[in-house]
Amino acid sequence: MKREVNVEWIDGIEFKGDSDGHQIVIDGPPESGGKNNGMRPKPLMLMALAGCTGMDVVSILKKMKVDIKGMSIKVEGEMEEEPPKAFLSMHVIYTFKGKDLPVEKLEKAINLSKEKYCGVSATLMKVIPITYEIQTVDA
Amino acid sequence: MKREVNVEWIDGIEFKGDSDGHQIVIDGPPESGGKNNGMRPKPLMLMALAGCTGMDVVSILKKMKVDIKGMSIKVEGEMEEEPPKAFLSMHVIYTFKGKDLPVEKLEKAINLSKEKYCGVSATLMKVIPITYEIQTVDA
Repeated sequence: MKREVNVEWIDGIEFKGDSDGHQIVIDGPPESGGKNNGMRPKPLMLMALAGCTGMDVVSILKKMKVDIKGMSIKVEGEMEEEPPKAFLSMHVIYTFKGKDLPVEKLEKAINLSKEKYCGVSATLMKVIPITYEIQTVDA
Repeated sequence: MKREVNVEWIDGIEFKGDSDGHQIVIDGPPESGGKNNGMRPKPLMLMALAGCTGMDVVSILKKMKVDIKGMSIKVEGEMEEEPPKAFLSMHVIYTFKGKDLPVEKLEKAINLSKEKYCGVSATLMKVIPITYEIQTVDA
């Protein structure tokens, strides 16, 4: 089973990426020779993790009939200080909005994503620790 | 050293991602409950690798005074057939456009990215093999 993406060099260190017709601009900050016209590459790895587990969790909560009014996910990645600045760990903060949310079901959904469904964390967990926390907002 | 991103649930399995003010839409295809409004999460990992090594390689070639007229990078990711469909390997195809391009310098730039500078491949290479090939187009 295969996925593929393409990036095309624009100028400086700016690239235009394409994934199945969806486009993205990748660039760096001026101190790296960029014009800050788009996302940096490394945060895209964090974005992959956030999106992957986010999709799992909303789908699982829907099946569990847990009525959330909103959800956001922050992913923090800790990196080495020196090049190549590989990731050392990632921390995922899930924030759910809703009325009297059942925390044990939120936890179950997150664990199912982590242990069973999310291919991004399944790949990354083999090399770095991924931790998480849950925040709820009554709304 | 830290990087962070945020994603906010929109609807269905659609999320809006933000990385230092740069936005992206993440969604899935209809068969996964999505509306195909944005990129899937897993290709974002491939995109991270493409952008990271791309930036390195254009910067190194500039220092080497290798005059490329264009560059594109395709990243193919092979995944498990069954959930969580973790990545098994990645293959990077670099295509350079230019006149009489010195292939050994192109190779050197790619190897420097892989072995020294690219934090995305440094993270992923610990868990999956990453191979590459070079194509040149006379232009």
